[in-house]
Amino acid sequence: MLGAIDIGGTKTGIGIVDAEGKILSYHQRTTDTSELSTWLRICTEQLEDCAREINCRMEDLEGVGINLPGMVDTNRGLLLACSYPGWTQKPVVRIMKELTGIEKIYVENDVNSCAIGEMYFGLQEKYKDFLWMTVSTGIGGAMVSNRQLIRGAWGCAGEIGHVKVEYNDPKLCACGGKGCLEAHASGTAITNEVLLRAKLDSEFNALFEGIHEPINAKSCAMLAREGNQTANEIYQRAAVYLGRGIGYGISLFNPQAVIIGGGVGMSLDLMTEEIEAVLANTVNKSLLPVDIVPTKMGYMGALLGAAALVLYNQK
Amino acid sequence: MLGAIDIGGTKTGIGIVDAEGKILSYHQRTTDTSELSTWLRICTEQLEDCAREINCRMEDLEGVGINLPGMVDTNRGLLLACSYPGWTQKPVVRIMKELTGIEKIYVENDVNSCAIGEMYFGLQEKYKDFLWMTVSTGIGGAMVSNRQLIRGAWGCAGEIGHVKVEYNDPKLCACGGKGCLEAHASGTAITNEVLLRAKLDSEFNALFEGIHEPINAKSCAMLAREGNQTANEIYQRAAVYLGRGIGYGISLFNPQAVIIGGGVGMSLDLMTEEIEAVLANTVNKSLLPVDIVPTKMGYMGALLGAAALVLYNQK
Repeated sequence: MLGAIDIGGTKTGIGIVDAEGKILSYHQRTTDTSELSTWLRICTEQLEDCAREINCRMEDLEGVGINLPGMVDTNRGLLLACSYPGWTQKPVVRIMKELTGIEKIYVENDVNSCAIGEMYFGLQEKYKDFLWMTVSTGIGGAMVSNRQLIRGAWGCAGEIGHVKVEYNDPKLCACGGKGCLEAHASGTAITNEVLLRAKLDSEFNALFEGIHEPINAKSCAMLAREGNQTANEIYQRAAVYLGRGIGYGISLFNPQAVIIGGGVGMSLDLMTEEIEAVLANTVNKSLLPVDIVPTKMGYMGALLGAAALVLYNQK
Repeated sequence: MLGAIDIGGTKTGIGIVDAEGKILSYHQRTTDTSELSTWLRICTEQLEDCAREINCRMEDLEGVGINLPGMVDTNRGLLLACSYPGWTQKPVVRIMKELTGIEKIYVENDVNSCAIGEMYFGLQEKYKDFLWMTVSTGIGGAMVSNRQLIRGAWGCAGEIGHVKVEYNDPKLCACGGKGCLEAHASGTAITNEVLLRAKLDSEFNALFEGIHEPINAKSCAMLAREGNQTANEIYQRAAVYLGRGIGYGISLFNPQAVIIGGGVGMSLDLMTEEIEAVLANTVNKSLLPVDIVPTKMGYMGALLGAAALVLYNQK
């Protein structure tokens, strides 16, 4: 049995997963970002509760994988950069070994974890070379080449959210840059576009009231599925930018597949055709076809990824 | 001692290299692309001559590395795609084993070979994660991560020449695509721009007559070095596009360095400042600084790379 802790900026998931990727018990808490070691203590208590619920002990866990919200130094077992003051440079792995009494503790950022999760609990039978992308509030990426995660010089390889996809009319990105993929195709970017269109077009605006939904990327996907043209246009526009970014990834990595998770990933079917059209126009034929598919792990990818860290780091 | 054969579309270099990367003997021939096995026989004869010149025998060679002009299947030891009819799907490694009597024969495309060469006869002390780029008639790339060449799903990773760097006013590329890095910043692209400017500006045109040089990328670099503003502008324009393409590479691979070879690579000093300015504006700060440096192998990189294949494939 594998311990899994997925610490995100908003929520933390804590669970126990079996070797086949079945979640045996699961708790979720709102992340308290005030003090890292306090939060790790609470996560440990939650994990103990999870163990108790399925009548097992902490000693029965093969190890614990932990996703951390920021730039992770996996070798030293800590956060290098993070938006919460006091969370960086703390020896997470050492603290967790003491708290849990478990020797095998591994840390990773959540996107790398998802890619590792896919190698154990997802599409591992089908692909050994793939680009994993989270398209959610932001956009993150990770690359697996011949069943190995590519880390790069300091663990930041796969930063596909911040490749430039628009030079002519670039939007400002949360990173401070302009024209980043994240600024044009993330859930946030799509929601911004929906809000803008709704403001300019009262008929479009009224549709959201009609379906009793707030105006955002998710409800826009619902309208697009019902055949609304404006909603569909918004997704096709995002698809063009995703196609550009994915195109760079395919040219540079030559993957068999691009596997997409995250909230916007759930609306991938609305965009696949347009993404593939952009790829056909922008990627060298010898690198195609590449499968553009949703993750097989569903909503719990990050937790499954955390559990998979225990397997990946022992192989 | 290492045998090295660098078969390019125009010229073929044949040589013997020692374990420190010193070229002990070297022949060059114009490539006859009519029949692959005939050409391999001639290369073998040239290699035998090279051996004789330094008083050694073919049996003294530890192995032979061969660069092939196209898409190479290194496992099966053959060309998958190539512009010369009849060169593909031929068992190059098997043919060469028979011709030379040498067991260790390795094939690779020339850009991958250059990257491998850099790991043995170049900047290996300084970098273990780097993007290698040939900026010459065309633009090619190869990625080394933790001293391993990344091959991708079918050996085509690193295709940086065909990432899109211009969407607004894209130039047609030799690959059939539009807006590729190669179409905007290769030696061919720079020469085209120089010819266009010379046609429109008779004063600029006259400068080439003054230095008794044909109008091309190389002579343009000479004028830029002498302070000519038009010539310099042409290089700064290419540098902006190189910066964009390199930016994608840095975002996706997180390398310590980008190592540049090829003819235009020799003019890297004219462009470094502009490339770095583009990177500062387009790449996430956490991935910088990245060294943008010329190859340490100089003009003979591809031959040294072929020799290095013997070392790399045995490690």
